Amino acid sequence: MNTRSFDVVVLGGGSGGLAASFRAASHGAKVAMLEPAPLGGTCVNVGCVPKKAMWLAADLAERIALASQLGFDVPAAPQVAWPRLLQRRQRYIDGIHASYRQRLQDTGVAHIAQRGRLLDARTVECDDGTRLHAWHIVIATGSHALKPDLPGAALGGVSDDFFALQAAPARVAIVGGGYIAVELAGVLHGLGSEVTLLVRGQQLLSGFDSEMTAQMAENLRQQGIDVRFGCRVQALERHGGGIRALLQGGPADAVFDTVLFATGRAPSTHGLGLETAGVALDGQGAIAVDAFQNTSVPGVFAVGDVTAQAMLTPVAIAAARRLMDRLYGGQPDARLDYDNVPSVVFSHPPLGSVGLSEEQARARFDTVNTYHSRFRPMLQALGDGQVRTLFKMVCAGVDEKVVGIHLLGEGADEILQGFAVALKAGVTRRQMEDTVAIHPTSAEEVVLMR
Amino acid sequence: MNTRSFDVVVLGGGSGGLAASFRAASHGAKVAMLEPAPLGGTCVNVGCVPKKAMWLAADLAERIALASQLGFDVPAAPQVAWPRLLQRRQRYIDGIHASYRQRLQDTGVAHIAQRGRLLDARTVECDDGTRLHAWHIVIATGSHALKPDLPGAALGGVSDDFFALQAAPARVAIVGGGYIAVELAGVLHGLGSEVTLLVRGQQLLSGFDSEMTAQMAENLRQQGIDVRFGCRVQALERHGGGIRALLQGGPADAVFDTVLFATGRAPSTHGLGLETAGVALDGQGAIAVDAFQNTSVPGVFAVGDVTAQAMLTPVAIAAARRLMDRLYGGQPDARLDYDNVPSVVFSHPPLGSVGLSEEQARARFDTVNTYHSRFRPMLQALGDGQVRTLFKMVCAGVDEKVVGIHLLGEGADEILQGFAVALKAGVTRRQMEDTVAIHPTSAEEVVLMR
Repeated sequence: MNTRSFDVVVLGGGSGGLAASFRAASHGAKVAMLEPAPLGGTCVNVGCVPKKAMWLAADLAERIALASQLGFDVPAAPQVAWPRLLQRRQRYIDGIHASYRQRLQDTGVAHIAQRGRLLDARTVECDDGTRLHAWHIVIATGSHALKPDLPGAALGGVSDDFFALQAAPARVAIVGGGYIAVELAGVLHGLGSEVTLLVRGQQLLSGFDSEMTAQMAENLRQQGIDVRFGCRVQALERHGGGIRALLQGGPADAVFDTVLFATGRAPSTHGLGLETAGVALDGQGAIAVDAFQNTSVPGVFAVGDVTAQAMLTPVAIAAARRLMDRLYGGQPDARLDYDNVPSVVFSHPPLGSVGLSEEQARARFDTVNTYHSRFRPMLQALGDGQVRTLFKMVCAGVDEKVVGIHLLGEGADEILQGFAVALKAGVTRRQMEDTVAIHPTSAEEVVLMR
Repeated sequence: MNTRSFDVVVLGGGSGGLAASFRAASHGAKVAMLEPAPLGGTCVNVGCVPKKAMWLAADLAERIALASQLGFDVPAAPQVAWPRLLQRRQRYIDGIHASYRQRLQDTGVAHIAQRGRLLDARTVECDDGTRLHAWHIVIATGSHALKPDLPGAALGGVSDDFFALQAAPARVAIVGGGYIAVELAGVLHGLGSEVTLLVRGQQLLSGFDSEMTAQMAENLRQQGIDVRFGCRVQALERHGGGIRALLQGGPADAVFDTVLFATGRAPSTHGLGLETAGVALDGQGAIAVDAFQNTSVPGVFAVGDVTAQAMLTPVAIAAARRLMDRLYGGQPDARLDYDNVPSVVFSHPPLGSVGLSEEQARARFDTVNTYHSRFRPMLQALGDGQVRTLFKMVCAGVDEKVVGIHLLGEGADEILQGFAVALKAGVTRRQMEDTVAIHPTSAEEVVLMR
């Protein structure tokens, strides 16, 4: 039997697995990383990266329409050739793959293009039977999109299928109200599809500040997306060349060319030998970890989506790096602080959020004040665009510590990061006001809110 | 003789004068504001606002070119119809004027459309002879562009003349290396002019971090702007239908359709009766003020460009508001802190900067560390654009307090504001790193710099 020994074996070559591998190697550890699929996981291949590429294309379409109003010699309703767009998107992803391969080579991380499963806390068996012994095992196998269990579900796709589309479907239904649903709806609408958003609940993005999500729903409707709340898909069936959705609480004649489910993602724990090794799952089926990414088995760790702790690429990366700083970098206390993690929903316009919603703040503090700014950005005003911006700040206590910042509008994706640093550092409203504005920008409205 | 009495008389209806007037009125003061020209001063009429409108148009032109690469049905070299663009620009400015008029009416501020001059510390005489008595006089008359004293200077224009252009000149020379020169060069190049930038010194934007300004010069050259350092304009003369510039250290045959001087601005102190009232100027001809905006004459104050303290609209506004909070708002210690004022140069791409340059930091601290990020933003990579981003962070001391942040790249204008709050609040590099990144954005690179 073929046996190899390493300091660390990492299961998964997505963002978290790569970060763990590179950081461990930088501290001198001998690392093996198992990944049979393209490197970069969901983020690089069927998530953040191609999503942002499509979002940028939809954003360009909007800007071209505004440019047409401003006197440019461009069409008011621009069209994009999908084959060209997809070729450029893939070229960008290929570039990331190449840089990962280079870095694996440079750092001496052994990339094993196979799946592995735990035999015990120190042993991983690869698909080809090779056994890997290690002092530490890191599970970073990520998550995958779920389809609901309903008749005809196979007729619908998930976000992975969105990335396989070769053209904008004429009529598309997105099922779900979370961030993936909102993002897919915005991109497809921006690139020419007629989009219906079928939401089971009564608001988008549960957990986010409800004033912001209400504004987002209004934005989507204003742009021409058919948003249906309280709408439950009961079945899908073929109808001519399309798909008919049988709905409770939705439009009666619901026929689409494409139906995409964005109804949830699950940690990818199957076939990893977790039970054999005694690695415990939590109630939601994710690998249970403590604040230091320790699983129930000493020497076995987990990071990223497979732990279901804030399913965000930078969270997986940051957790992985700190874990390796702790195990090999002489930083015994290193761990990721999961508080005040900023995130952006790439809707059109995007929604950036850090800290508490107003609802969460009111549940936690006696004194809560909120501040708002509503305005139309200059480009929208110049080009007769109707998309307004809503910024909101949530402050707590008599010293008005800033505990939540919520930005819905053009540029929110780029504006938020610095404010996230400031919020995490504990700034007060007074410190926000004492910072001189940068004029004319959208970002200045954050320090000028009343 | 017609005499009227007020609590406050404000000379100037630009950003600072308006802010002083509105804030004083909000505290219950009876206010007169003198302004014969369109409201909003330089910023609204011949500065920030129309500049940003033109910058947005140039930015659209760049994005349309990228969109063409990505498969959109748009021209690779888009053209804009200037009459339409200028009409939209003016409509936007008209909207601001209307909102100011409405607000003057709502707040009860008396707008007197005349110039005024001080007779003494309590009396202003209007052009029509009316005398205004007041407890407090605020001078907020702003600044104006200067032309150098050289033969044929009348053939060239200044930034005000840029805003009067009705089309892109085919060949244009911009004289100067400051932020206005760089901004005019970028906009005119973006809208189709062949641009030559004639810089007397050896770098752009003196006072800014030299690594950043060197990168900016490289960006301008890469885009096709002819940047000439060490070039002195000795005279202008007519040449056919154009203007010949006689240069020392520049191109021999320098003929242009338009020459714009961006060689400096001077505080507008003329004809205000400053000498009569005893209001002292500083060595540069600006009104001398202390940290509380007090001039040499008790009861007479000055804010904004006329004091030459950081000639930025938000600085004038913030100083004016704090002055009125001090005089009428029961906040005896209110004053603007002029440290760590962020600012953005609207070049293509923009340069945002807050705090110290590396040079300034090294002069002030023993231990200085710098961190960088250089990358090509996703849209540039997708569209074969060549414009790269350079971010730089300057940290001081063993605790690595962040003392300077410099961002040159797409989105820098919007990214900076939040980081300015964080820097002013005193964050360390460790606090930057402890904030989770927002992926995929440009802004995340600021917290990921190495």
